[in-house]
Amino acid sequence: MSSVLLLSCPDQPGIVAATAQAIADNGGNIVHAEQYVKADDADSGAAFFQRVVFDHADDTTTKSFRTAFTPTAERFAMTVDLRDDTIPVPTAIMASKQPHCLYDLLTRWRSGEMPIDLRVVISNHPDHEGICTHMGVPYVHLPVTKDTKPQQEGDVLDTLDRHGVELIVLARSMQILSDDFVSRHPTRALNIHHSFLPAFIGANPYRQAHERGVKLIGATAHYATAELDEGPIVAQDTAHVSHRETVAQLTARGRDLETVVLARAVAAHVEHRVAVHGHRTIVYN
Amino acid sequence: MSSVLLLSCPDQPGIVAATAQAIADNGGNIVHAEQYVKADDADSGAAFFQRVVFDHADDTTTKSFRTAFTPTAERFAMTVDLRDDTIPVPTAIMASKQPHCLYDLLTRWRSGEMPIDLRVVISNHPDHEGICTHMGVPYVHLPVTKDTKPQQEGDVLDTLDRHGVELIVLARSMQILSDDFVSRHPTRALNIHHSFLPAFIGANPYRQAHERGVKLIGATAHYATAELDEGPIVAQDTAHVSHRETVAQLTARGRDLETVVLARAVAAHVEHRVAVHGHRTIVYN
Amino acid sequence: MSSVLLLSCPDQPGIVAATAQAIADNGGNIVHAEQYVKADDADSGAAFFQRVVFDHADDTTTKSFRTAFTPTAERFAMTVDLRDDTIPVPTAIMASKQPHCLYDLLTRWRSGEMPIDLRVVISNHPDHEGICTHMGVPYVHLPVTKDTKPQQEGDVLDTLDRHGVELIVLARSMQILSDDFVSRHPTRALNIHHSFLPAFIGANPYRQAHERGVKLIGATAHYATAELDEGPIVAQDTAHVSHRETVAQLTARGRDLETVVLARAVAAHVEHRVAVHGHRTIVYN
Amino acid sequence: MSSVLLLSCPDQPGIVAATAQAIADNGGNIVHAEQYVKADDADSGAAFFQRVVFDHADDTTTKSFRTAFTPTAERFAMTVDLRDDTIPVPTAIMASKQPHCLYDLLTRWRSGEMPIDLRVVISNHPDHEGICTHMGVPYVHLPVTKDTKPQQEGDVLDTLDRHGVELIVLARSMQILSDDFVSRHPTRALNIHHSFLPAFIGANPYRQAHERGVKLIGATAHYATAELDEGPIVAQDTAHVSHRETVAQLTARGRDLETVVLARAVAAHVEHRVAVHGHRTIVYN
Repeated sequence: MSSVLLLSCPDQPGIVAATAQAIADNGGNIVHAEQYVKADDADSGAAFFQRVVFDHADDTTTKSFRTAFTPTAERFAMTVDLRDDTIPVPTAIMASKQPHCLYDLLTRWRSGEMPIDLRVVISNHPDHEGICTHMGVPYVHLPVTKDTKPQQEGDVLDTLDRHGVELIVLARSMQILSDDFVSRHPTRALNIHHSFLPAFIGANPYRQAHERGVKLIGATAHYATAELDEGPIVAQDTAHVSHRETVAQLTARGRDLETVVLARAVAAHVEHRVAVHGHRTIVYN
Repeated sequence: MSSVLLLSCPDQPGIVAATAQAIADNGGNIVHAEQYVKADDADSGAAFFQRVVFDHADDTTTKSFRTAFTPTAERFAMTVDLRDDTIPVPTAIMASKQPHCLYDLLTRWRSGEMPIDLRVVISNHPDHEGICTHMGVPYVHLPVTKDTKPQQEGDVLDTLDRHGVELIVLARSMQILSDDFVSRHPTRALNIHHSFLPAFIGANPYRQAHERGVKLIGATAHYATAELDEGPIVAQDTAHVSHRETVAQLTARGRDLETVVLARAVAAHVEHRVAVHGHRTIVYN
Repeated sequence: MSSVLLLSCPDQPGIVAATAQAIADNGGNIVHAEQYVKADDADSGAAFFQRVVFDHADDTTTKSFRTAFTPTAERFAMTVDLRDDTIPVPTAIMASKQPHCLYDLLTRWRSGEMPIDLRVVISNHPDHEGICTHMGVPYVHLPVTKDTKPQQEGDVLDTLDRHGVELIVLARSMQILSDDFVSRHPTRALNIHHSFLPAFIGANPYRQAHERGVKLIGATAHYATAELDEGPIVAQDTAHVSHRETVAQLTARGRDLETVVLARAVAAHVEHRVAVHGHRTIVYN
Repeated sequence: MSSVLLLSCPDQPGIVAATAQAIADNGGNIVHAEQYVKADDADSGAAFFQRVVFDHADDTTTKSFRTAFTPTAERFAMTVDLRDDTIPVPTAIMASKQPHCLYDLLTRWRSGEMPIDLRVVISNHPDHEGICTHMGVPYVHLPVTKDTKPQQEGDVLDTLDRHGVELIVLARSMQILSDDFVSRHPTRALNIHHSFLPAFIGANPYRQAHERGVKLIGATAHYATAELDEGPIVAQDTAHVSHRETVAQLTARGRDLETVVLARAVAAHVEHRVAVHGHRTIVYN
């Protein structure tokens, strides 16, 4: 058995020692620990963050450890997020017409590289049903028009509920989730935006990039929030381009970036390596 | 003797053949040629751009070739920019307090790597006089206050004139050049901005980057124009950062990017590899 | 109609003009031209290389242009490779058990991004038959043992012949092609090696990389030749790693590199942007 | 006061807790801790590595803490390396004719960016005396010929001793240090090699790279050992190149890589972030 403890609290001496002691006292063996002190938050004092991975005997469940850890958590006013590292995260992928991110995630999932429990693929297009059926994941086709948008969100949420989904990966999907939904679930939906944010927010970033004459294109994976393209960033990358690339060629080049950056962000999330602090993320190694 | 021909004109069949023929007819031997057709400029038709490097016997000067090429240029309504590739570009570096870009350019110039004719270094700080004197380049210290800014620009322009400067490299310099000046000389001043433009325009880009929680920092070299940080981009690059870096550490990491990106842009300019089209650049290989 | 002309010859004045004139005289319009002079080949004089893309009216076929160009080619002792740019290259993918490069190429082909005419997938494993059938490409399963290796090469060559294959992509395939075959077809088979060659030639490059303690891993796409991992390199890339990555994690990280580098090399080949000179390649933009 | 504790020992439960407790008991406050378990060392069991940075009151010196930590170290059979983080490392730079790495390190040192105590620059060339004198660091010119090489090493070692040097940075220096010296001091001398090791060991790596036709060049910073270019690697990076670059251009491009990679390695060393295990390094964040 293996658990991951993500904690944060106001910084003070002794946190590392107390946490390590509490884990050892409960039969846990720390295999990885990483911490981070955010020092420059002048108004609120320094903040302490830590991720600890520990093995434990099978009779100490993640749940029983949670109880055992409570006194330590209370002593340091910790926010504690404790996860069972042996159970893959129940996940849905939402896709629109474009296949590249979807196919890539399907391949990683099928080859066992990406530790997700892929429950369902939802799309407003019928195109990907064949490949999903072939790969063995349910495909739910939910077409949408301007008029049916509010109703479609209801159908999407029902589908997510019915499949017990925790993580929603927006793999170049139309933004169907309402502001209300993402506000209530700030770290449940990972989105890929096809620019190096905060540049080129909104529609047609490759066209914007071409018009500005930049020498780089980029991709950004972030948690979806009510403010468009303003959510906490999990992963980003760029690639060099030249004056030669047309908008269509920038778009093609960008697909490789989007694919890799989204996969990197999903991996960080499902390996419980991401903590959110304000609108910044801490991505542990 | 070696010359560089940079030309642009409306696209039509036969340009490459006619240009190559005109060069051959005048005793030139093409050693490098690169062209670019900008096809997607719907309103104005396709535009043709070419850079040709050719050797020629010593009695055919760049100047005499200009005359010989006139009929071809007129036939295709070309804009022609013809440069003698054997004469390094007379250059000034303007620096403020920060040394990294200045020292790097001085080192490249002194080692013969960067083919510029460095005429003068101008700074509003006295700090770099010693190193410049040691390296053998005149140093002009022009302090500036809010009140003296207009007068200081006059002094700067006088200094540039007196030293016969063509290219002005703003190596992390206070923006002294007025909008009026840069508007009149749209490709004379190369500036380095410490972000991946168009993100983080204006002051304190590293602080802005830290607050947004980006996973990349960048640097952008562009021609200075009247609109702040909106000039045609010549070179850009980024580097990965994590939540760990403080603003000070981002700033330190960024210095390496700024240094390399500015050097790359200066090299492209002085090797006559940059053409400007609207607010985009064509940077030939 | 569009053609690509790849030529090489000893360097001398007038080649560019003569070639451009010959294309113009035959109704062609040059849309892209790029040249390269290899100057430092002391023993054999400078060598000239050029790639020209030109449009022409439908009644001038690539074939008829070949005849028209013969006098120019003979005058300059050119090696000429002329290709019809409107016909995608007939291609086979050979794969072993690992799916990542195969699935990626299938996705790019199906989405229309990669201009290949995918005729057949050949594998010594049965695993990928379902996905290939689903995607609509014939799958030929040719199992191999030590004893049957020579016979299996015969079956592979028959399959390639039967499907009219010109380009063979070895997508993390067992090396089935004999030295004799690759010697006779030096630019027909593109291989992906999972290291930055010439480091870590041969088996288990990720294990070798881990043992050496390098801070980078890499991937290299090259034409297969009789000498193991010594063929002309078409594309390479690297990614940063740390002491943390185990051999298994290096292998997983490496898959993304292999996938992108192989796709980049295949694109360069089928867009007729690669010329081979000795054991080096010229990869045009 | 701030100390850095670098420790290694056989892995077992309880190390993190015991170390954290020992630091807390002695009035230390952990500000950063990072650990690493090397699991795949089958023959010798898993190995545990940790770097802990802690602040402490001024009356607890690094020295007194060393005594206090002894029981913990003995209990877990730890190898302990404890350093005072407030005292910059006494450093020498050895350079040959090429200036780029030397000038870059001088600039970083003078601007306060690089926390080294630069004691002396040693060179077999007279060229850099002016800049070193100007920057305020002693310059020792020790010319060398084949015949005087053994004697010159004696002069170098005397100079290092006289200036109390701990770290020797070989900034594109002739290898003067004998095998005997580097064997006795395995982590005292940092060298920069101008290739992505283990490719292109030995002389003229850029020429080797050009001949092999690679699409990347690289640089590697490593500890100097008796085996040429085989020492533990601290930092590496690569840059894309094309067929166009001549050996001279590869060399010029490579200088930027060498400069940045060496600076990165020196920073890691003097910030006490490097541990050596066999011929691999652990480079903490």
